[in-house]
Amino acid sequence: MSVLVVGSVALDTVETPFGRAEAVLGGSASYFGFAASLFTDVQLVGVVGEDFPDEHIQAFRQRGIDVTGLVRQPGRTFRWTGRYQGPMSVAETLHVELNVFGDFEPVVPPQYQDAEFVFLANAAPQVQMHVCQQVPDARLVVADTMNFWIENEREALLELVGEVDGVVVNDHEARQLTGEDNLILAAREILRLGPIFVVVKKGEHGSMLATKTSLCVLPAYPTTEVRDPTGAGDSFAGGMMGHLARCGEVTNATLREALAYGTVMASLTVEDFSLRRLAASRNEEVEDRLAELRRLTQL
Amino acid sequence: MSVLVVGSVALDTVETPFGRAEAVLGGSASYFGFAASLFTDVQLVGVVGEDFPDEHIQAFRQRGIDVTGLVRQPGRTFRWTGRYQGPMSVAETLHVELNVFGDFEPVVPPQYQDAEFVFLANAAPQVQMHVCQQVPDARLVVADTMNFWIENEREALLELVGEVDGVVVNDHEARQLTGEDNLILAAREILRLGPIFVVVKKGEHGSMLATKTSLCVLPAYPTTEVRDPTGAGDSFAGGMMGHLARCGEVTNATLREALAYGTVMASLTVEDFSLRRLAASRNEEVEDRLAELRRLTQL
Repeated sequence: MSVLVVGSVALDTVETPFGRAEAVLGGSASYFGFAASLFTDVQLVGVVGEDFPDEHIQAFRQRGIDVTGLVRQPGRTFRWTGRYQGPMSVAETLHVELNVFGDFEPVVPPQYQDAEFVFLANAAPQVQMHVCQQVPDARLVVADTMNFWIENEREALLELVGEVDGVVVNDHEARQLTGEDNLILAAREILRLGPIFVVVKKGEHGSMLATKTSLCVLPAYPTTEVRDPTGAGDSFAGGMMGHLARCGEVTNATLREALAYGTVMASLTVEDFSLRRLAASRNEEVEDRLAELRRLTQL
Repeated sequence: MSVLVVGSVALDTVETPFGRAEAVLGGSASYFGFAASLFTDVQLVGVVGEDFPDEHIQAFRQRGIDVTGLVRQPGRTFRWTGRYQGPMSVAETLHVELNVFGDFEPVVPPQYQDAEFVFLANAAPQVQMHVCQQVPDARLVVADTMNFWIENEREALLELVGEVDGVVVNDHEARQLTGEDNLILAAREILRLGPIFVVVKKGEHGSMLATKTSLCVLPAYPTTEVRDPTGAGDSFAGGMMGHLARCGEVTNATLREALAYGTVMASLTVEDFSLRRLAASRNEEVEDRLAELRRLTQL
């Protein structure tokens, strides 16, 4: 089955101890889409401005990503400038221009409306809810968010969390959302709001998946080539949702595998700037990394 | 086979969001000893002052810990006062009195000198080296350290690392010791100094074991009852060394199991103040947690 992603498509300028990339392809929907497209068909809803290079649109198409829902509007594309230092665990945002993404009201094209697996990448919770309402028959709707919405749109966010089937957050967000420092208790608190699963991403420390009846904890894939962490979380979600859509069913077993595929896709993304490494990745190396992850964690 | 630990025995005053404990039994050798004694015989070398309660000595004996090497000297016992806040990932030291531990020159009693498994808990690297020389026939000598020695006794510490068979450090220490932010590269850098294995403890994020030919990464055991993290690292080392001594051999397989036992012992320690939870733990629940850890990480 295909997976639908609604989120940002951006031009990023990123500086890390390993170099700098200027106005390169970024955005949550881009990372998610590139990662998920290794597993299944992807439909993308997003917005870009007049300055968005055609070559990126071509790159999406070459990955088999359906960009019917990627609209071009007058104005400039969403731009983010950030920096990572030291162990690169936290992005420092230096500059943001929302541009056309600021007033974006996503419309799911008619041909996407029977989408069964839907990922609502980070956006205002009201916008995510609006998308939710356009795919009433979806089997699995999963949402990401960020600290800004937890602080400023808490009520709308809690309402959204009550509507979706899955939530993907990082450890800081899980703590901030629930006021609970212990991550397992924080995850349980989120589950009480409604979703059937919650994934807590912990960057270089791996991830945790909690459902009402199970818990799974995985370390990050131990790559030594971390050059730019941008997009790791969205690539994680892309691998996860891509695998679930490919399986066509959401069980404790497929969710656990999905967590592992998410782990692998994130590990590929961080090895180079922008979507370069992800664009060069092949199914075979994804399976190799999965097998390696299995060996590394085996007791 | 038995395991010998040389390190601090202390009276700790600890405050966490879950309560406060005043002048309770602490110290690296105490935590290590209590944890290791669940697996094998333990011999302890340390020093206490005149104020050290006899009941703690009895508690060691009740765990089957040989305290022939625990000397009592004129003066007061090593005292540490610390506080943990929020997610309790970092201890804030409020007060330290080294007291009798300050001038401690550990002497391994004659009846311990054929010890085959030796743990040098955190101390000045010169002191650790001095112990090392007293057990020339040991099969496995493992050392812990801390940021203070990395900053102030770097040369002596590097020399010690070159002498021992294994090193146990936390993530900050691994980075600080090597100047390498990527933990896998940091671990490899430490291996280049001489030891056959290095364990990097990451608190709530689990641990990593690196040898020249293998890597193992484990999450922390997901306890929801974290009340006081004091001693988690030393309990980890105790579970690890205890299992290795019980097996009597150090292979990639036993090291991997040892990492899991260390994980379990740390998870018990943090569930209550001082050594209370560790003192109440039984082999059966250790095996239960190990089985649970296996399930949680299984792919």
